[in-house]
Amino acid sequence: MVETIQWTEDGVVMIDQTRLPREETYVTCRTYEEVAEAIRGMVIRGAPAIGVAAAMGVALGVLLSGEGDLDAQVEKICATLAATRPTEVNLFWALDRMKKLYASLRDRPLEEIRARLIAEAQQIRLEDIAINEAIGRHGAALVPDGRTVLTHCNAGALATAGYGTALGVIRAAVELGKKIDVFADETRPFLQGARLTVWELQQDGIPTTLITDNMAGHFLKSGRIGCVVVGADRIAANGDVANKIGTYSLAVLAKENQVPFFVAAPISTLDLTLAAGDQIPIEQRAAAEVTHVFGAPVAPPGVRVENPAFDVTPHRYVTAIITERGVARPPYTESLQKLALS
Amino acid sequence: MVETIQWTEDGVVMIDQTRLPREETYVTCRTYEEVAEAIRGMVIRGAPAIGVAAAMGVALGVLLSGEGDLDAQVEKICATLAATRPTEVNLFWALDRMKKLYASLRDRPLEEIRARLIAEAQQIRLEDIAINEAIGRHGAALVPDGRTVLTHCNAGALATAGYGTALGVIRAAVELGKKIDVFADETRPFLQGARLTVWELQQDGIPTTLITDNMAGHFLKSGRIGCVVVGADRIAANGDVANKIGTYSLAVLAKENQVPFFVAAPISTLDLTLAAGDQIPIEQRAAAEVTHVFGAPVAPPGVRVENPAFDVTPHRYVTAIITERGVARPPYTESLQKLALS
Repeated sequence: MVETIQWTEDGVVMIDQTRLPREETYVTCRTYEEVAEAIRGMVIRGAPAIGVAAAMGVALGVLLSGEGDLDAQVEKICATLAATRPTEVNLFWALDRMKKLYASLRDRPLEEIRARLIAEAQQIRLEDIAINEAIGRHGAALVPDGRTVLTHCNAGALATAGYGTALGVIRAAVELGKKIDVFADETRPFLQGARLTVWELQQDGIPTTLITDNMAGHFLKSGRIGCVVVGADRIAANGDVANKIGTYSLAVLAKENQVPFFVAAPISTLDLTLAAGDQIPIEQRAAAEVTHVFGAPVAPPGVRVENPAFDVTPHRYVTAIITERGVARPPYTESLQKLALS
Repeated sequence: MVETIQWTEDGVVMIDQTRLPREETYVTCRTYEEVAEAIRGMVIRGAPAIGVAAAMGVALGVLLSGEGDLDAQVEKICATLAATRPTEVNLFWALDRMKKLYASLRDRPLEEIRARLIAEAQQIRLEDIAINEAIGRHGAALVPDGRTVLTHCNAGALATAGYGTALGVIRAAVELGKKIDVFADETRPFLQGARLTVWELQQDGIPTTLITDNMAGHFLKSGRIGCVVVGADRIAANGDVANKIGTYSLAVLAKENQVPFFVAAPISTLDLTLAAGDQIPIEQRAAAEVTHVFGAPVAPPGVRVENPAFDVTPHRYVTAIITERGVARPPYTESLQKLALS
């Protein structure tokens, strides 16, 4: 199994997700700035994986801290990492966790602070794998046997420290013996579905069919899709879900065709400080992601482009939210609060 | 203005739509088989343009007919052209029109038959431009002023003999002085929106923003889209519409967000022999269109692919169908029948 991200003596090593599946290459980030750049440039992506990367970035920054006020340096490290992907709440969750640990340690010797922060980042990575396996266990029961599961983007091992959220649910359903196959949206513009989800599921031998994003509605109408399972980048207190652009459309089309629509995400994706999804900031990315595919232009020069990386799916389209602590059902304001406190 | 298709002394000349916008090159088809191949390979595409190409293909085939039974040769020419794009009813409409003319002429001298078939094909081309201008006039009134029009695929000058159906409506609205801009779905896998619609509208100076297909729902929800206008490849008697894959999703998302959804198409796109859209054959195209973009692979080798070129939008999602004879409203079984007979 490929490792998405690892702490090594050389630095933070990530598989380069901009080059998959054509090349299986690894990037070693030797400074926290390089970690931030890897997050921004989507060498690593997926909300939980970004959380792990951010934690490792803090540990790396403190490991290499210079003379002078360490508090100020930690502040700067966290601010730099926080400025990369504004929608991803797991990023802020991981930074908060590292900041709180640092605050509890700041009177300790520097070597101890460094060792504890490194251990914490590694712990976050290990916890994430265990969390995804728990999400898989809770979600597997919801997947209709003998049918096709539709997924969008990549909420797989590559989007996490391992196993995956949405793909974790699929993997766990297969492990339960359910006879399912997967339809993977290619997920323009970055093609996470075509490049990453197909590649991951091929490695696991799970039958997968690639479709373009605009075919999903046609197949939802056809009756062959038993459920949709996607990940999430931030979930508001009322159950509104920010996830990869195109998720909202899938959710509407699933509801229109009476197909269950499931969101699989760790508790760290909940942002209970936001009452509703319209308060979630939506990252706008570069036009070139839309106008070019692997460097080749697909549109005339000079065209205006919109490139929101995420959209918000109102909770009324969400059948259930699958977390490591159990499955939340509507009304989400109550069920999510209960899981968060459990 | 670029010409989509023309009859010349050298053969049938088409702008090569597989190479736009990167190269503005022309293909000359010197035999009817080459016309069939150009239709199949999408050198020319768009229902009305395919109708014109098919008519010119018949004229070219008869112009170059050999010794022996001309009836049999005409039969073979039409069968070859008919076997290219099964969903496109304008193709069959044009072939029927040429066959009927041939049947009325078959006792005439060969030179006269040839001249009349060539004139008829040229007439179909000219009629198509006039039809699109009429569609534009009827449709322009429906476009909300001061808002954004969302369109899918290319139902423009390049999809017709000129002016366009959906883009004809947009052009006519601009000519009326309406202050509108356009959002163009890129329209995977063949990228007709990114490559052709953006290019056409840039040439006309109509402000256009390119989005990926999976962003359309997000913008329909945002409130900035005043209406959706698309073309059609075949319309059943009840108003169900076959059009480029992704149209169904747009229609559902438009209805969900109370945005009017208009279909612009000539009367020749009606297939009143089919009671409903589920009887429309859906063309499946090659996997390589999905797995490769301009020759570059976007997915791992060996992946399974589905590639339906069209989907069917049930009539309940269609606000109005704009034809050269006027605007049909629900119930379509009555309104379309009335327009067809008018």
